[in-house]
Amino acid sequence: MKEKISDGDYVLLYSKGKTWLVKVQESKDFHTHLGRLELGRLIGEPYGKAISTDSGNILYALKPTIEDFVMKCERQTQIVYPKDLGLIAIRANLASGARVIEAGSGSGALTMFLAHLVKKEGRVYSYEIREEFQKIARRNVKRAGLDQYVEFKLKDASQGFDEEDVDAVIIDVGDPWQLIPKAVTALKESGSIICITPTMNQTEKVAEEMKNAGLVRVQSFEVFLRGIEARLGKTRPSSMMIGHTAYITSAVKVV
Amino acid sequence: MKEKISDGDYVLLYSKGKTWLVKVQESKDFHTHLGRLELGRLIGEPYGKAISTDSGNILYALKPTIEDFVMKCERQTQIVYPKDLGLIAIRANLASGARVIEAGSGSGALTMFLAHLVKKEGRVYSYEIREEFQKIARRNVKRAGLDQYVEFKLKDASQGFDEEDVDAVIIDVGDPWQLIPKAVTALKESGSIICITPTMNQTEKVAEEMKNAGLVRVQSFEVFLRGIEARLGKTRPSSMMIGHTAYITSAVKVV
Amino acid sequence: MKEKISDGDYVLLYSKGKTWLVKVQESKDFHTHLGRLELGRLIGEPYGKAISTDSGNILYALKPTIEDFVMKCERQTQIVYPKDLGLIAIRANLASGARVIEAGSGSGALTMFLAHLVKKEGRVYSYEIREEFQKIARRNVKRAGLDQYVEFKLKDASQGFDEEDVDAVIIDVGDPWQLIPKAVTALKESGSIICITPTMNQTEKVAEEMKNAGLVRVQSFEVFLRGIEARLGKTRPSSMMIGHTAYITSAVKVV
Amino acid sequence: MKEKISDGDYVLLYSKGKTWLVKVQESKDFHTHLGRLELGRLIGEPYGKAISTDSGNILYALKPTIEDFVMKCERQTQIVYPKDLGLIAIRANLASGARVIEAGSGSGALTMFLAHLVKKEGRVYSYEIREEFQKIARRNVKRAGLDQYVEFKLKDASQGFDEEDVDAVIIDVGDPWQLIPKAVTALKESGSIICITPTMNQTEKVAEEMKNAGLVRVQSFEVFLRGIEARLGKTRPSSMMIGHTAYITSAVKVV
Repeated sequence: MKEKISDGDYVLLYSKGKTWLVKVQESKDFHTHLGRLELGRLIGEPYGKAISTDSGNILYALKPTIEDFVMKCERQTQIVYPKDLGLIAIRANLASGARVIEAGSGSGALTMFLAHLVKKEGRVYSYEIREEFQKIARRNVKRAGLDQYVEFKLKDASQGFDEEDVDAVIIDVGDPWQLIPKAVTALKESGSIICITPTMNQTEKVAEEMKNAGLVRVQSFEVFLRGIEARLGKTRPSSMMIGHTAYITSAVKVV
Repeated sequence: MKEKISDGDYVLLYSKGKTWLVKVQESKDFHTHLGRLELGRLIGEPYGKAISTDSGNILYALKPTIEDFVMKCERQTQIVYPKDLGLIAIRANLASGARVIEAGSGSGALTMFLAHLVKKEGRVYSYEIREEFQKIARRNVKRAGLDQYVEFKLKDASQGFDEEDVDAVIIDVGDPWQLIPKAVTALKESGSIICITPTMNQTEKVAEEMKNAGLVRVQSFEVFLRGIEARLGKTRPSSMMIGHTAYITSAVKVV
Repeated sequence: MKEKISDGDYVLLYSKGKTWLVKVQESKDFHTHLGRLELGRLIGEPYGKAISTDSGNILYALKPTIEDFVMKCERQTQIVYPKDLGLIAIRANLASGARVIEAGSGSGALTMFLAHLVKKEGRVYSYEIREEFQKIARRNVKRAGLDQYVEFKLKDASQGFDEEDVDAVIIDVGDPWQLIPKAVTALKESGSIICITPTMNQTEKVAEEMKNAGLVRVQSFEVFLRGIEARLGKTRPSSMMIGHTAYITSAVKVV
Repeated sequence: MKEKISDGDYVLLYSKGKTWLVKVQESKDFHTHLGRLELGRLIGEPYGKAISTDSGNILYALKPTIEDFVMKCERQTQIVYPKDLGLIAIRANLASGARVIEAGSGSGALTMFLAHLVKKEGRVYSYEIREEFQKIARRNVKRAGLDQYVEFKLKDASQGFDEEDVDAVIIDVGDPWQLIPKAVTALKESGSIICITPTMNQTEKVAEEMKNAGLVRVQSFEVFLRGIEARLGKTRPSSMMIGHTAYITSAVKVV
């Protein structure tokens, strides 16, 4: 039984390496350099369907992945990139059922990813002090269909968290070291704190504060992702790559 | 309410950067250069508990993460490393409830990680042709407490898969291109195939076969992970790093 | 005694991270968004001189380095980048007095660098089959003031080289493996052949052909260069970096 | 006319990826797991000569390159690695005839490389405060046959340098920022200062002090070198690589 596209669903239109995240609506058109597409024609079709624009170009209506929702999200802040999300997931031991605090909703990119991993029993408690960012984060999370797994809180995390015994606390703010004592309080024993820090100086301060707070297994990393252009007889890495996004530092609470 | 350690549970003993994955048993001792530890003393204690060896050294009894089970697994094959697992999870859009085929159980490291992500409603169908590897994979998956989410199959995957409409197929064998047509058959529309290949020649062949099989969004990557030694006033990257494990190639099935 | 700028000399004008390679001429003006500069005012001044445009912006008239001539060269081909030039210099053991063959003048970027290292007693014998490229290479080498150290040859290198007992042969063409037997003939014993190849497939073929030709110490490498933005309290790697230019393969001739 | 091996010359014995830097002496034997070699048999032979041990294994007597002398040097300090030497050479615009100050002779690895590049008219002025290091550096430089191009000075560089108008100053000490004002004094206009610093904190301090000292074009970099195992049908990067040695920061003096 194939999963069908319904009115209001998001699809990722794909053609020759280019993608567009689009909401399917009965009477809406979608315009690109490849021509005009009546989106209503996708309703009732299976995901993966090839569809032709009025100028005869083929687009595929893929089901968006969490990476698509992250990369195509509305943003007013730097987001956490997929290359770092994977490491965060592993270091925080995230899986279905986990209860996770996120300090700094930002644009909600990381929030979506966390919700995607902890659903359906788990919860993300996402703290943000700036209302305009929370609004964007809410919109992004809702668009990805993950809003029922997230509790947004318009609160200053430095005043402490409402939750107890959470499995992990992920901190993505400018001065993460200030939140570590409160994070430790909210965290269950043997749970993880993860900080995301663009500069070396922040990373150093975070690692130091983690040690001061009695956390163990304090480790920092950076991840590089390089595209490979695999083509018969001409395989080579991509010319450009992201040189840096952020360092990831993790630590574990002990009794 | 703290989670308590029970007889038969695994703990990750931690001391100053060193770790040991150990099964807690009533009358068993654990010996390291740090001294002897009566493991039975941990029963009833919360995870994260500090405990002293007979020579007075402190060890922390952490709750093992999926990364710990992966890195400490019994192995007779090259395993998929955490740096690559994160990318695979994202590219395959893995989350709770997903049904995933794994071709090549190997030592079960990837199997564990997949099961960890798709539990509890999801399933991993793990194919392996060599019985001795399957046995190791079963042991590793059982040790991680994930065996109820995995169906092991002692079968030649090149003869096809028993499942239909799976969300993703992850292929980690020496000649992955040979399995792509069968993987396409087993996959639902808009689902992903991921291949893990150590050499550029395999990567090239895989990408070519994916295109030939009508898959779209064929992309290859490599991931680098570098440790950062964050210490006040002396922060620097680690001297050694893994230079290469494998390339990850992903693609999407269309109608 | 300071080195003075003369009419006809090149200077590298520098302002806040931006640079322009400019020929100083008595009655010429230089225009940028920073204003107009009468270049003649630099004549007789020392290199490093700060000079003001008509709109009051300061530019420094630096002495161009070999890297500046390489990066600012007129180009119609992909050039060899500084990150790779350093490795080539070391692998080919280049120093003053060396006699080096370059197969593929291209735009002359590598030619300049080789000439810079082997001057004054050494020589670069630079082969190119396409006249339009040789013309560009000649212009670039002349501009860098290195033309007396280079002999350009409009010849098909696959027909063999005119020189004997050269210290190194550097091959930067599309099918470098075809030139290896001829390179071996031209090379002195214990001398090095270096091939520059963008793709994995070329690199593999080159390494194979080197081994077949009886060369030893066949080794391939790739070099990554990442900028670091070192700023008080906010030090971090640059966001963008070059992901790939070419692989460098070297080998040594034995008796 | 082939270059012949003389009594007292160094050769790099090579066999299947392994190398030994050995002094050829009339009545000396060289022992490895490959058997015994009477070194006197190499006298009068050309470099690159294949020679057999008493157990029938073939070794090639290559002419050592500057990289070989660097990598095989006697060392009591961390040395500057070839991957970084290339960048230093380019950033300092080193070539024959240059006059260069080196602050911190260390084990003389960098000294050798600098001498190799500036010979024969150029000079390296190498400052070192610890006599035991200078001795090692002298031995290494002499072994590489480069001692006539180096003036070693047993002096505290923080008291200033004896030279004026040098082309470049390369600083490889623990607190390089302290030497920058003195380095500026010794440097000619438009000349370069290069600092080699293992930690990000040192790099930050160096960059800051360079700006404070009125230097321009302050840029920091790190270099990664990865081996590629190029083998027909099985080409892949090497599993291990150096993750970090040092950051390189360069700047230019202006009037």
